[in-house]
Amino acid sequence: MARVYATGSEPSIRVPMRAIALSGGETHVVYDTSGPYGDAAIETDVRKGLAPLRASWIEARNDTVELERPASFISSRKPRVAKPSRAVTQLHYARRGDVTPEMEFIAIREGVSPEFVRDEVARGRAIIPSNVNHPESEPMIIGRNFLVKINANIGNSAVTSTIEEEVEKMTWATRWGADTVMDLSTGKNIHATREWILRNSPVPIGTVPIYQALEKVRGKAEDLTWEIYRDTLVEQAEQGVDYFTVHAGVLLRYVPLTAKRITGIVSRGGSILAKWCLAHHEENFLYTHFEEICEILRAYDVAFSLGDGLRPGCLADANDEAQFAELETLGELTEIAWKHDVQVMIEGPGHVPMHLIKENVDRQLEVCKEAPFYTLGPLVTDIAPGYDHITSAIGAAMIGWYGTAMLCYVTPKEHLGLPDKQDVKDGVIAYKIAAHAADVAKGHPHARHWDDVLSKARFAFRWEDQFELALDPETARAFHDETLPAEGAKVAHFCSMCGPHFCSMKITQEVREFAERGMQEKSEEFKAAGSELYVPAG
Amino acid sequence: MARVYATGSEPSIRVPMRAIALSGGETHVVYDTSGPYGDAAIETDVRKGLAPLRASWIEARNDTVELERPASFISSRKPRVAKPSRAVTQLHYARRGDVTPEMEFIAIREGVSPEFVRDEVARGRAIIPSNVNHPESEPMIIGRNFLVKINANIGNSAVTSTIEEEVEKMTWATRWGADTVMDLSTGKNIHATREWILRNSPVPIGTVPIYQALEKVRGKAEDLTWEIYRDTLVEQAEQGVDYFTVHAGVLLRYVPLTAKRITGIVSRGGSILAKWCLAHHEENFLYTHFEEICEILRAYDVAFSLGDGLRPGCLADANDEAQFAELETLGELTEIAWKHDVQVMIEGPGHVPMHLIKENVDRQLEVCKEAPFYTLGPLVTDIAPGYDHITSAIGAAMIGWYGTAMLCYVTPKEHLGLPDKQDVKDGVIAYKIAAHAADVAKGHPHARHWDDVLSKARFAFRWEDQFELALDPETARAFHDETLPAEGAKVAHFCSMCGPHFCSMKITQEVREFAERGMQEKSEEFKAAGSELYVPAG
Repeated sequence: MARVYATGSEPSIRVPMRAIALSGGETHVVYDTSGPYGDAAIETDVRKGLAPLRASWIEARNDTVELERPASFISSRKPRVAKPSRAVTQLHYARRGDVTPEMEFIAIREGVSPEFVRDEVARGRAIIPSNVNHPESEPMIIGRNFLVKINANIGNSAVTSTIEEEVEKMTWATRWGADTVMDLSTGKNIHATREWILRNSPVPIGTVPIYQALEKVRGKAEDLTWEIYRDTLVEQAEQGVDYFTVHAGVLLRYVPLTAKRITGIVSRGGSILAKWCLAHHEENFLYTHFEEICEILRAYDVAFSLGDGLRPGCLADANDEAQFAELETLGELTEIAWKHDVQVMIEGPGHVPMHLIKENVDRQLEVCKEAPFYTLGPLVTDIAPGYDHITSAIGAAMIGWYGTAMLCYVTPKEHLGLPDKQDVKDGVIAYKIAAHAADVAKGHPHARHWDDVLSKARFAFRWEDQFELALDPETARAFHDETLPAEGAKVAHFCSMCGPHFCSMKITQEVREFAERGMQEKSEEFKAAGSELYVPAG
Repeated sequence: MARVYATGSEPSIRVPMRAIALSGGETHVVYDTSGPYGDAAIETDVRKGLAPLRASWIEARNDTVELERPASFISSRKPRVAKPSRAVTQLHYARRGDVTPEMEFIAIREGVSPEFVRDEVARGRAIIPSNVNHPESEPMIIGRNFLVKINANIGNSAVTSTIEEEVEKMTWATRWGADTVMDLSTGKNIHATREWILRNSPVPIGTVPIYQALEKVRGKAEDLTWEIYRDTLVEQAEQGVDYFTVHAGVLLRYVPLTAKRITGIVSRGGSILAKWCLAHHEENFLYTHFEEICEILRAYDVAFSLGDGLRPGCLADANDEAQFAELETLGELTEIAWKHDVQVMIEGPGHVPMHLIKENVDRQLEVCKEAPFYTLGPLVTDIAPGYDHITSAIGAAMIGWYGTAMLCYVTPKEHLGLPDKQDVKDGVIAYKIAAHAADVAKGHPHARHWDDVLSKARFAFRWEDQFELALDPETARAFHDETLPAEGAKVAHFCSMCGPHFCSMKITQEVREFAERGMQEKSEEFKAAGSELYVPAG
């Protein structure tokens, strides 16, 4: 496994890829989210942060200014903001016809043309989360005509975990394939945790700003105000957060629709806003101030992830009136965000039985005019706490196939506790499986090749190649070695499952040779009989 | 968790169920495959085997005789066989209109009428694997109008594992929910391993007799003969095997259709037969002797599991000409088996991308006249060795929803090694998830109730109930306790994921109380204003 780069029209556009060297001399190249950490030639230091890959592109656009703020405690860089009344979003650039370096980077990464990237962004069908204050991030795109992406949630809570652990989880998640990371911290040190994560993250970072706003009012939802929330958005936008979950669709009149549910409102943000609305008997301030939020986001290129605060928390509540009422509002807000040149994706459930999954995608695409869909699972059953990476990977694979652009992972600890490193890895791998399976089912032109390369290695008993091509080479190798640890077994033409006599792959190779020999003989017999026209069959 | 029994029309029909006592005093009852091992009041001794639950039913039918064979080294019971020319299959009884004790047992177990069970069996749309020589097994049914079932494969190979380990894996698999177990042993002691497993198994046991036949010719496929195979069938039928995988659809003319595949023939049985056909340039002897095989199976009530010897071993080979050619032959053989009153199910793939899964079920149902489908996964991607319980649970859930009656599990060790106990458990749990998700999606009348009961416990912070209702209570409890080990945390109205301030469930309960209070106040205001007609909304 090695890092290679594909270079674009200028030297600063260097797209990282993972090159897997195979024993026959070929190389299989795969998409790589691990950033500088995946390049053995680059030294990284968490106290200094990553190099600002996109800084020169952002400066060259000459539409932002540095703010008179003290530089952060990691970076000497000052935060930037759009010049007055300028939109600095990728959507804005795309609409005016520009192919940005970010778009070119993505085009190389995805194997499509830069113009295609631009057009999908301009149409609102894809987003490029890329805050001008997070120049460390490597451009990536979320849209259903690209590879399906996955998000990993990290973040400490009041109960457990430290900043170091969260930074470590972030790099660990990207090592295994997380395309974006959401920092859902709710405890102390929210600002500092986020700063460490942003300065060290090669992937876009998302947050739910209402969590920090709530900390500022000591947890009392009723005490939240638009001003406190607005200041929190600005604070996080200046730090570099690439997308915000905003639960602006939780309207006062929708709250009673959840009363008869089994699990009511399970979104934290949704329940905070519901409580605020009821306490004041006023409309959700995120909804009433939505245009002001758009103004802030367009000044940094923070994308909306319009939150589904009323998503179902169990199968019984799936696809109900509350859920779809909120979706209608998210559709309305999508068009307002687009009017302001702000990028938008839409969050989706949750817990949904298999037969109700497709309706979620079909409705979302229609109501939200094809803005990218970003779903949490969905879990297809509620009976397996401890295994919800699996219950949800089933739903995630299906919803990805149906058209969801990004899948938010679920770890084995869901419903039970905060994920540790092993849980993060288990969640990411389960979701890489779901995303890739969806790419294959959608007929993505580059997706199935990987399966074929691995299957050929498997059939030819190239064990080392099979391990290296696996999503998780370490585990594949370890499992093989549990029963056949000897080095010689890695070139053996059988494995411990069946032993040498019973290996179907070995027998098939014999069958193939036998069949070829048979054809050859027939061919010769035929030629001997006087004909030249015999062509061996199939 | 406790064992309860529902009794049928006679005392010997005692259907075991698992009763989960909830903290509110209610009980949630679930299907239980663990047999006598799940009943604390029953002492089991692996050297003596289980009690022969069905023995009196079989004797009462008076259509079998004891064979003059020495009793097995575990049981003092002699093997039985049908009286001359009698069919002793559940299909035969169903067709003549009988409701057997097996059918009544199943009706109670599944919550349907005995007549419905009989009619589905008579139509060939469901099977009850129930060899007269395996009276220890508790009746169960495989058909798409019943709960989706799962099979766990065990079995030693020439390379590894002992008899004790295999018996332990069998009981372990049934503890977690395996509905049938296949013994795929290929090494030494095949006969003895099977004897231990059968005498101790509360679930039907399946085998692939060609594996033992091949051992008898020291692994040389060319040396196999009909006579050796026939004797093996009789030997295994007398031991009590409940279903046989028979690869009678691997026809000589289909073998060349696999030549251009990436992974050729991956079924062990399929490759053995393909080799035999090519070596002799003769038709598959399982096909040419199929009616004689039917005669044997009907004399013991062994069910056919018609093997898919040409199933795809990678995504690239899915749904190809070879696979569907064999399926056509399996359809033809299904009708021959039915003519002989022999029960039949049909095996299916394997490795199939999501968008090609449904075609497998649709074709199988049509070609095989709705005989139950029994599939291995399918895996929806090839790139994740080490996680194929997940890649395949995705396909299994979907194919179960589309109409597959039984799902053969895949463990994390698939493609890499033989499963150990942990792998067996991981495979079974992943497949219980898939099967239950399929039951829910199919709208099985009793399926979603379990999800709802668990979700209610979750919403009400009844942690102990949530653990006990989980497919794997031990893991759920252990995960919770990792971050909040104190006993007090199990009655806490929050968990470590969000901490007390952020708990959406807690906030929702507050929202609900708030809303109710608000409604109450409004109602009173309204009444005070002079009206009596106000009905609180929602």
